[in-house]
Amino acid sequence: MVKYSVLSKINIPADLKKIPLSELPQLAKELRHFIIDIVATKEGHLGASLGVVELTIALHYVFNTPKDILVWDVGHQAYGHKILTGRKDIFHTNRQLGGISGFPKKNESEYDAFGVGHSSTSISVVLGMAIASQLKGDFNKQHIAVIGDAAIASGMAFEGLNHAGVTNANMLVILNDNEMGIDPNVGALKEYLTKVKQGKTEHCLNIFEALNFNYSGPIDGHDLPKIIEELERLKKIEGPKFLHVITTKGKGLRQAEENQVTYHAPGKFDKISGEQLKNSNANLPIKYQDVFGLTLVELAEKNKKIVAITPAMPTGSSLTYMFDKFPQRTFDVGIAEQHAVTFSAGLATQGLMPFCVIYSTFLQRAYDQIIHDVALQKLPVIFCIDRAGLVGQDGATHHGVFDLAYLRLVPNLIIASPINAVEFRNMLYTVQKGLDLPIAIRYPRGRIENQLKGDLWQQKFNSLPIGKAEQLTFGDKIAVLTIGTIGNTIIDVCKIKEYSDTVSHIDMRFVKPLDEIILHKVGKQFKNVITIEDGSKIGGLGDAVTNFMQENNYLDVKIHKMGIKDQFIEHGTTEELYHQVGLDKKSILNLINTLL
Amino acid sequence: MVKYSVLSKINIPADLKKIPLSELPQLAKELRHFIIDIVATKEGHLGASLGVVELTIALHYVFNTPKDILVWDVGHQAYGHKILTGRKDIFHTNRQLGGISGFPKKNESEYDAFGVGHSSTSISVVLGMAIASQLKGDFNKQHIAVIGDAAIASGMAFEGLNHAGVTNANMLVILNDNEMGIDPNVGALKEYLTKVKQGKTEHCLNIFEALNFNYSGPIDGHDLPKIIEELERLKKIEGPKFLHVITTKGKGLRQAEENQVTYHAPGKFDKISGEQLKNSNANLPIKYQDVFGLTLVELAEKNKKIVAITPAMPTGSSLTYMFDKFPQRTFDVGIAEQHAVTFSAGLATQGLMPFCVIYSTFLQRAYDQIIHDVALQKLPVIFCIDRAGLVGQDGATHHGVFDLAYLRLVPNLIIASPINAVEFRNMLYTVQKGLDLPIAIRYPRGRIENQLKGDLWQQKFNSLPIGKAEQLTFGDKIAVLTIGTIGNTIIDVCKIKEYSDTVSHIDMRFVKPLDEIILHKVGKQFKNVITIEDGSKIGGLGDAVTNFMQENNYLDVKIHKMGIKDQFIEHGTTEELYHQVGLDKKSILNLINTLL
Repeated sequence: MVKYSVLSKINIPADLKKIPLSELPQLAKELRHFIIDIVATKEGHLGASLGVVELTIALHYVFNTPKDILVWDVGHQAYGHKILTGRKDIFHTNRQLGGISGFPKKNESEYDAFGVGHSSTSISVVLGMAIASQLKGDFNKQHIAVIGDAAIASGMAFEGLNHAGVTNANMLVILNDNEMGIDPNVGALKEYLTKVKQGKTEHCLNIFEALNFNYSGPIDGHDLPKIIEELERLKKIEGPKFLHVITTKGKGLRQAEENQVTYHAPGKFDKISGEQLKNSNANLPIKYQDVFGLTLVELAEKNKKIVAITPAMPTGSSLTYMFDKFPQRTFDVGIAEQHAVTFSAGLATQGLMPFCVIYSTFLQRAYDQIIHDVALQKLPVIFCIDRAGLVGQDGATHHGVFDLAYLRLVPNLIIASPINAVEFRNMLYTVQKGLDLPIAIRYPRGRIENQLKGDLWQQKFNSLPIGKAEQLTFGDKIAVLTIGTIGNTIIDVCKIKEYSDTVSHIDMRFVKPLDEIILHKVGKQFKNVITIEDGSKIGGLGDAVTNFMQENNYLDVKIHKMGIKDQFIEHGTTEELYHQVGLDKKSILNLINTLL
Repeated sequence: MVKYSVLSKINIPADLKKIPLSELPQLAKELRHFIIDIVATKEGHLGASLGVVELTIALHYVFNTPKDILVWDVGHQAYGHKILTGRKDIFHTNRQLGGISGFPKKNESEYDAFGVGHSSTSISVVLGMAIASQLKGDFNKQHIAVIGDAAIASGMAFEGLNHAGVTNANMLVILNDNEMGIDPNVGALKEYLTKVKQGKTEHCLNIFEALNFNYSGPIDGHDLPKIIEELERLKKIEGPKFLHVITTKGKGLRQAEENQVTYHAPGKFDKISGEQLKNSNANLPIKYQDVFGLTLVELAEKNKKIVAITPAMPTGSSLTYMFDKFPQRTFDVGIAEQHAVTFSAGLATQGLMPFCVIYSTFLQRAYDQIIHDVALQKLPVIFCIDRAGLVGQDGATHHGVFDLAYLRLVPNLIIASPINAVEFRNMLYTVQKGLDLPIAIRYPRGRIENQLKGDLWQQKFNSLPIGKAEQLTFGDKIAVLTIGTIGNTIIDVCKIKEYSDTVSHIDMRFVKPLDEIILHKVGKQFKNVITIEDGSKIGGLGDAVTNFMQENNYLDVKIHKMGIKDQFIEHGTTEELYHQVGLDKKSILNLINTLL
């Protein structure tokens, strides 16, 4: 048992400032241990925070937070920051329902100057803060953005640098260069940074100097005295400054250094040996991500037109299978959702079939490209929208709950969501036979349903007619219309004869185009219709059905919309959250029972 | 009368290739004259196309379009391209209903390899095309993107460069550097390009070389033999290439060279003298843009917290008044909508009141930032959404018809739209008194209504309660609910007593939050309700009202939604387009008469 001889004295950064410089390396050791100790059992993001332990200590040591502004880009790396800023004692509640967030969050602490989660926002927001200070006549306040080398390659970060470079804003951008995002970083800028680190660009303006930043570095991000010295120096320099820091993701835990992708968020592990704990995953169903990745390989073997694109999530999206098998046909474009979509549009113009795989919440970054570059031109890009619905512990910044609504209003776009893995595979099979329009297929994070009959991989592919729903039960009292995997709750309910006799369960499969034939039947037969979706109640399936009934004069049909009400949802397990938002089996049954 | 001695021989690029090199300067002269001749009377974008006359000729001379791919970024500069690619004889129909589009458009010509309109898409799409050729084993096909120095500073362009630099795609990016967007270009990259042009970065990797592009230039973009020589040379080089070309926007028309902002799209002008034709604008009402710009200055004089942000549209948004009066508090961030929104969020965290002014269609570029950086954190950014509704001749890429729908599903966001200039001023006045939440205020392109009583500027400001509608007439047969300036059609209708006796016209003012008190009244009193909005029928006011009636069990109320149906709308005058989509006075009256 390690004693926290220094860390125990620190609750907030003011305490840190009382520690002599000589004790800071010990503090780094303890902070690292504290993070490992808790993440080993409570799970969470590990590697990123281990990599910036020294930087975190140095920043709070040198600067006067929270008066001075500190914004961590993305926020995976901010565990040390949270622990040093008043949240040590509740750090074990990290990512749990009611506990602290896994990301910096504005209303959680005054030390979290800005809420983050999505990448590459820090330069823009810190510039805004620095300009605000200037306008308010405060020329002493410091404004710092810490951004990784994957995040800085995103277009938005470039926009921030480009603007900052023509201001005299008192801001410091710290590039935390560890050559990793969640997966290894890619792109020309990354290769360039390597040259910078190797000293191959000496005597020349580097890119950041070219953009008018006062550049310094690269320095060793694990050398505490060096970082502190450099931050002290930069504190006194006016205008936009840029510090290039080299760190090792996972620093201090051998396995995390060696397996940086796995130990980005390793799940439970042995805090002494560092080994991941064996869990009973072997007996659990496969993940939707793997169904996607493996099916795509299966289809790509026969269909040479298939190509796949991911913005920096090859592992998370299980595109690794495609990368292994068809490296020439698989593209990791880095954290660049806008580019990913329009690059896919370009591929589609030449007759290829791009499967553009993006997490639901990150697809928001490419909204204009979906409309302007794909849908308007009717290019048959296939959007595979991963992590739709509530995603659990990543919380408000990561839930994929808006996609059905923001996509439904886009002309020319087909929107589908499978109820299970078989239907998912059939959808992927169907689209690669060739469509005239773009399509979005959304599916959740996590494992497929247990109740699949037989071996998923032995079942023959079937084409699904576009815009056709499937009626699963034929009860006579109410209709329940579901989209996506949340429909399994109703399948479950209807295993009881009482319900299968009374409930007509329809798996809509498509939110657009709607199956109008089945909706006319519903409108004629039922007075009470329940719609269920794991997305925003505004604008999704429920609204589509409501609108259909109105337009077709089924005015006496009462639509009971179940979905996520008009608010942001916090973090917790998906089970807890679905209960909280009233989309768990009990809540659904309650409504059904009320209507029966 | 100039004779088109060379141009008359050219209908498609194949004809161009038969012309001897020595005659190309004459062709440039004639092409320039042809553009001036037609734009002088038919209106349209002028300066950009005049600037690339030589480049356009050279590209089609050297490359084998349409087999070789040529994508013009944004597309304002593509008039010469259209004229040389089979559209000379119909060029006079430019931007007219049923005529050719003002932008390259995929289904208009095989020479328009990709539809454009929004900025900075060309590098991504051309990379996609070049990679597709590679995968198909075509190593001879050329893929060229022409992009301006304002567009290349947008984040999306950087994402494309960053990816292209690690491929060996056979692509050529041509930077058309004229130091202008619509307004003068801004940002650190622009300053850097100036240094490059001055030769101050010699012997060093410049930014584009740093990103692994084979860079050449800068060369004079009006020196035809030089451009042709350089393109011929580049044609033989493998991998990603970058050619830096210096041009003068408006080249060849003195006034257009001297007044580049005005002559970007000058309206009618004398084709000989170049002078803009005096029209009767003096007697026309002021534009909404000017109401916005002048009111903001008026408010900013008293309220020191007000700051204003535009992504590259200071003139178009009439933020020029703010720039003149409060240059320190007004920010043109370049074509960088993502940054503009998150920069605004940063300003808001420090207690300032950012008025973030973005055209409706371009706000799509910042959708994630609205959700993730503003709404989630309840930062009171004020989005002023310019050019909402149908914008006329700019067409499908520029209509602002999706905003109500894609914004309505964002939690915490207030959405308002004024019916007239007085209400608009009152909304601006209201928000600067301080809100706890972000708000979007959308208003159309163009002039305010004639029917305003009295002098707009003499009317005292009034606070408008958030979420409160205003009932304008109290008829007893049907309710007509409108949002925004399209409500003036109903005001017009209700000037006839027959209608004011029968129609209850409610100016909703807010789409979110809805005025539930007035909607309950409507639900109780009326069986027929018409909703009218100049935006997508999916997801907007109509759906909001339909949903309210359903949830509150006014099941026998029939909602007649008027809005833009689920398709992209082409170009034409706004009058023609509103007629086409059934939102003109006649169509609205027809529905009202049917229901009365």
